[in-house]
Amino acid sequence: MSKIPIGIGVVGLGRAFVLMLPTFVKDDRVRLVAAADPRPQARARFTQDFGGASYETIEQLCADPNVELVYIASPHQFHAEHVEIAAAAGKAMLVEKPMAITLDECTRIVDVVRQSKTILVVGHSHSFDGPVQHAARVLEAGSYGQVRMLNALNYTDFMYRPRRPEELDTAQGGGVVFSQAAHQVDVARALLGGMVDSVIARTGRWDESRPTEGAYGAMLNFEGGAFAMLTYSGYAHYDSDELMEGVGEMGFLKERCGHEQARRRLARLDSVDEGHLKQESGYGGEHYRADDRPPAPFHQHFGHAVISTDKADIRLTPSGLMIYSDHERHFEPTPHRPVPRCEVIDEIWNALRHGRAPMHDAQWARATTEVCLAMLESGRSGAAVPMRFQVPALFSAI
Amino acid sequence: MSKIPIGIGVVGLGRAFVLMLPTFVKDDRVRLVAAADPRPQARARFTQDFGGASYETIEQLCADPNVELVYIASPHQFHAEHVEIAAAAGKAMLVEKPMAITLDECTRIVDVVRQSKTILVVGHSHSFDGPVQHAARVLEAGSYGQVRMLNALNYTDFMYRPRRPEELDTAQGGGVVFSQAAHQVDVARALLGGMVDSVIARTGRWDESRPTEGAYGAMLNFEGGAFAMLTYSGYAHYDSDELMEGVGEMGFLKERCGHEQARRRLARLDSVDEGHLKQESGYGGEHYRADDRPPAPFHQHFGHAVISTDKADIRLTPSGLMIYSDHERHFEPTPHRPVPRCEVIDEIWNALRHGRAPMHDAQWARATTEVCLAMLESGRSGAAVPMRFQVPALFSAI
Ligand SMILES: NC(=O)c1ccc[n+]([C@@H]2O[C@H](COP(=O)([O-])OP(=O)(O)OC[C@H]3O[C@@H](n4cnc5c(N)ncnc54)[C@H](O)[C@@H]3O)[C@@H](O)[C@H]2O)c1
Ligand SMILES: NC(=O)c1ccc[n+]([C@@H]2O[C@H](COP(=O)([O-])OP(=O)(O)OC[C@H]3O[C@@H](n4cnc5c(N)ncnc54)[C@H](O)[C@@H]3O)[C@@H](O)[C@H]2O)c1
Repeated sequence: MSKIPIGIGVVGLGRAFVLMLPTFVKDDRVRLVAAADPRPQARARFTQDFGGASYETIEQLCADPNVELVYIASPHQFHAEHVEIAAAAGKAMLVEKPMAITLDECTRIVDVVRQSKTILVVGHSHSFDGPVQHAARVLEAGSYGQVRMLNALNYTDFMYRPRRPEELDTAQGGGVVFSQAAHQVDVARALLGGMVDSVIARTGRWDESRPTEGAYGAMLNFEGGAFAMLTYSGYAHYDSDELMEGVGEMGFLKERCGHEQARRRLARLDSVDEGHLKQESGYGGEHYRADDRPPAPFHQHFGHAVISTDKADIRLTPSGLMIYSDHERHFEPTPHRPVPRCEVIDEIWNALRHGRAPMHDAQWARATTEVCLAMLESGRSGAAVPMRFQVPALFSAI
Repeated sequence: MSKIPIGIGVVGLGRAFVLMLPTFVKDDRVRLVAAADPRPQARARFTQDFGGASYETIEQLCADPNVELVYIASPHQFHAEHVEIAAAAGKAMLVEKPMAITLDECTRIVDVVRQSKTILVVGHSHSFDGPVQHAARVLEAGSYGQVRMLNALNYTDFMYRPRRPEELDTAQGGGVVFSQAAHQVDVARALLGGMVDSVIARTGRWDESRPTEGAYGAMLNFEGGAFAMLTYSGYAHYDSDELMEGVGEMGFLKERCGHEQARRRLARLDSVDEGHLKQESGYGGEHYRADDRPPAPFHQHFGHAVISTDKADIRLTPSGLMIYSDHERHFEPTPHRPVPRCEVIDEIWNALRHGRAPMHDAQWARATTEVCLAMLESGRSGAAVPMRFQVPALFSAI
């Protein structure tokens, strides 16, 4: 049993799937065996590319005995329902972030997983990134003393990528708090121990034509006194990859930093139906082009981040950690592994083949979602929001 | 009258004076005519360097008719008292930041200035920096729409420079909130309109041997909805001048970014009496060396800062503004002026010779101090602190 690859059934052949594809293709521990998507073109392409089974619905996919793990990469608002279906069929699950869009849904998922005794991992999120995990282990080892403060910022073009209507409607999980804070908060929780005490935030809706949160600033207070200052803007102005040696989120060197093209690109599209366009440039779509670049030379990342401890500041870079300690500074490279995002498969593999509980489980993801929801609430009320569902980060357990 | 240089009498020939010295020497609109300091060596050196009168006390200096403006650069805790003395003598004043260390003192100063109808400017602070003023004018002009968010961070070695005992005691005005937030908050208020609504902050005291605040994170909420995320650490680990093209606070290119030497340097000193050492390396001291470098080629700065508006992000650089707007980005150089910090003299000159009220007046400085004090309070209580003494930024008025 312990060496048999995990058969993956994909639910939702969209953008998230395309981003995970290199991992599924290159990591020997998994095999793509099936997919479910309402879009016939996507299913056809999947069968053509991977020879796997393709289904219209998740129910059909879950009846497929070759599927050991269901990768739930449907839009956020379906995640909770899809988890219930997959868990009922006894499947393990990899669920895209955010795990769900309400605390009730999250708790439903936590309960379902507990009752069905199945494995659920939430990811990819950037807290899986090599340098984040590397830093978390260094911090956990304790030789730099107590962890005190995190400063993280990211300025992207998130708001001007082609979007489905729900992605621009906060009530349906749209906006950067659900989609991007899910990463940044996950990173902060991973680095600062996981246990957020309270959250205070401001959110920005600065473009009426995209009426959802496009920016935020948040202060996360952690048990034990550490705190995180998080800043994000998806309004396609400043490009903070300038601070990351010009390396983009996916670990590729950018030809040029800058988001000047983002609005222009979007305007050129038939913006009456940009959701359709997102589809057509997505998997199986008319304009889809498979990513045939060689593997990214750098680690994936979510922007500039500096962790302050008693005895050092640690800055995450696309290749590792710059450690500025009391008397010297040095660079600790984070070993480059040939399969991108293989850390997600590590966690799944260890859980399914070695019985080790995953860190990014349903409770972990509920805690991250709780923080994101609190950011929205605090953004409305101006008040600090206390946390109830936090769980600790235990990197050494992975 | 309007072309006669302003005769300056310096109170406190310490570090702040040394930093203002190039301005006083090079700007034709002012002349150094007198100084007061309890240290005889400093007085001797002053007479030797400038041929001016030197006094033991501020009272004596204020009796000197050649002194038109008193530059109050004594330690914070004396500022309020020194303002009263100078105002009573009918002198104009340039007061170092922070203007004072309690709100009562600030209000006393505001009242004294109002009653004596004299001119008081508080500075230098980094809100005088060319690129800050440039950005404030661009923002005020309004072509980039509403100002929404500021992210500012600075990581320095402030805590490991030689210090007087009071500088390490918060009750006496020590720590980075009084000395450094005074700059960062002033910059934020200048850029975001001045009117802070409420402040929430965390402060860090992470080195028992220097038992005052060495770091903070603060969220400033402004009238109209804009907010600022401020992060500062003076613990001599990460050096954020890396993000400023390697240019240091004073506008000089650093040979190498990094604070690895800071603790070592301090340890080598006779740290039993580092206050004495600060003196001996200061003006008139045994180890004092006049700064004979050619003028700094860049603007002075207080770290990485990005302002987000509806239509652009503006990043401050040591030579001007990088403006990342909807469809393009461009660099707007901030004209380099031969005299460093001449913006301080602009404001003084305009006030004394052209009757234009200064922006950095006592009320402005009280508002900045109010924010700093609120950061300390919020750091203790965890709660948001409402503001009462805010005044608007009016750059166009300068
Ligand atoms: N981790 C990452 O880097 C990353 C990146 C992008 C998206 N995501 C996450 O992935 C999820 C999907 O986002 P996306 O950008 O890929 O969206 P998308 O619109 O590109 O893709 C969604 C796909 O799901 C399909 N779908 C819709 N309803 C379905 C259903 N009921 N059953 C099966 N398939 C269904 C659609 O046809 C489409 O192919 C979101 O939760 C998002 O936050 C994660
Ligand atoms: N704007 C800046 O860049 C900047 C930089 C450093 C300091 N400062 C400010 O300047 C002020 C002084 O700080 P510093 O670092 O120069 O301190 P310092 O210790 O270097 O100098 C203080 C000087 O004041 C003298 N002094 C003490 N009591 C006096 C009195 N009663 N009358 C006259 N002189 C007296 C001391 O002998 C000493 O020469 C502080 O408020 C500080 O925040 C501003």
